[in-house]
Amino acid sequence: MLRLPDGERVDLAAYDAAATPGAPGGKAAAQAATARTGKRLAGLQERLWAASTAGDRRRVLLVLQGMDTSGKGGTVKHVIGQLNPSGCRIQAFKAPTDEERRHHFLWRVRRALPEPGEIGIFDRSHYEDVLIARVHGLAPSTEIELRYPQINDFERALRDDGVTVVKCFLHLSYDEQRRRLLKRLDNPDKHWKFEPGDIDERARWPAYREAYETALQRCSNAAPWYLVPADHKWYRNWAISRLLLAHLEDLDPRYPPADFDVAECRERLLQEG
Amino acid sequence: MLRLPDGERVDLAAYDAAATPGAPGGKAAAQAATARTGKRLAGLQERLWAASTAGDRRRVLLVLQGMDTSGKGGTVKHVIGQLNPSGCRIQAFKAPTDEERRHHFLWRVRRALPEPGEIGIFDRSHYEDVLIARVHGLAPSTEIELRYPQINDFERALRDDGVTVVKCFLHLSYDEQRRRLLKRLDNPDKHWKFEPGDIDERARWPAYREAYETALQRCSNAAPWYLVPADHKWYRNWAISRLLLAHLEDLDPRYPPADFDVAECRERLLQEG
Repeated sequence: MLRLPDGERVDLAAYDAAATPGAPGGKAAAQAATARTGKRLAGLQERLWAASTAGDRRRVLLVLQGMDTSGKGGTVKHVIGQLNPSGCRIQAFKAPTDEERRHHFLWRVRRALPEPGEIGIFDRSHYEDVLIARVHGLAPSTEIELRYPQINDFERALRDDGVTVVKCFLHLSYDEQRRRLLKRLDNPDKHWKFEPGDIDERARWPAYREAYETALQRCSNAAPWYLVPADHKWYRNWAISRLLLAHLEDLDPRYPPADFDVAECRERLLQEG
Repeated sequence: MLRLPDGERVDLAAYDAAATPGAPGGKAAAQAATARTGKRLAGLQERLWAASTAGDRRRVLLVLQGMDTSGKGGTVKHVIGQLNPSGCRIQAFKAPTDEERRHHFLWRVRRALPEPGEIGIFDRSHYEDVLIARVHGLAPSTEIELRYPQINDFERALRDDGVTVVKCFLHLSYDEQRRRLLKRLDNPDKHWKFEPGDIDERARWPAYREAYETALQRCSNAAPWYLVPADHKWYRNWAISRLLLAHLEDLDPRYPPADFDVAECRERLLQEG
């Protein structure tokens, strides 16, 4: 994975979606490393939660963005699936409902934020409002222009409130998406994941690439974007689990000390009868 | 585990909390069986979710009740942790907030119900309103009396709406609770889970037992209660995973068939370029 530099022009064509930078060997080695990382993540997650019971307001928000089939759902299943589900707050953002449409685009996002001690996961996010909204012209372009600074302000406010925002762009190639869509068609148990509209969207691939490049460039200052090559699922899982680990280790959450008399409590229990 | 018969008097003293009925051997064998069951659960969970995308409104609600340290959180971690977290909706019910107190006791419960295709998990539930509320006199006894039939009506309405409600009473012994509380005191990393008030509550053990017996007896007709001996964590995990499996197998959710022309979509993708 790669942390994109703040404000610099992004050219996605320059990045190989099948690259595996930093991987500890091939598929098998990376999967084993992901499992080991998962155990460490679960331990840190418990500490983060424990700290919140003593007033620590810190939390993590993992934002997953990428084209259809890039592996947002797979990341939740395989990376987040290694954590304790009770400390995770997962939100998949679909096309906004009528109620959501009547509010500012950040309204539904604010309602889905993690509480202190939690790890929040957004499968799609407020970025859709500068991605699909831009590609399909779902809002006037003057309005969409305003959203980039609004997103930066929003993410800065989150940061100031103790939210570590980790944004991952799952970088998938056009050809790999076709392979994955064909694979879904070849397996009747996967047909429910398929929509013919997915093929129509492929015709807009260059427009989406441009929209992503713009968002990645303009919205990297409050919380950085990480580009995760996503043609290899095992690499994607490894990279995102390492990224989460690095951020949680930076937070270094601690079990809070007892705010009661431990010896007295022990005595009371032992003398019960 | 044991399905409690509807309406019959329940005498919790008659059940051994350290029993392991039906277990496939001892601890190691049960843990291996739980892991195997977890994979089958995850498969059925995906089918349940897939079916919901085609309009199937069915879902599951696992209700976990039991005294402090009986393993409600451990069940979420070890049993629900085997599922895809994106299809789980977990709610831990604490003492009601001021806002919740201003509403009917079922208000906050209705807001936390699983959506179609989801598996909902309640760590504590509406039963607290006839348990702690009864033991501590948090409401007039005439009002608490009304809650039992209201709970039955509520659970019947859930059933009619496609919600399979699976209620587990984690049956812990008084002595095992003391051992677990002492263990928490002996480990500074567990102090955050401890409150001196937990010891005070032990003095009310007989009142809680009576409140549980009443709830288990009166509220078994719309959705049955299962008594899960909980002194052995490995047994509790095995028993609840088997219980979930049995209910999901009964539901027998199916992947929905394609509602589009598969051959045409394949052709379009292959001819792209």
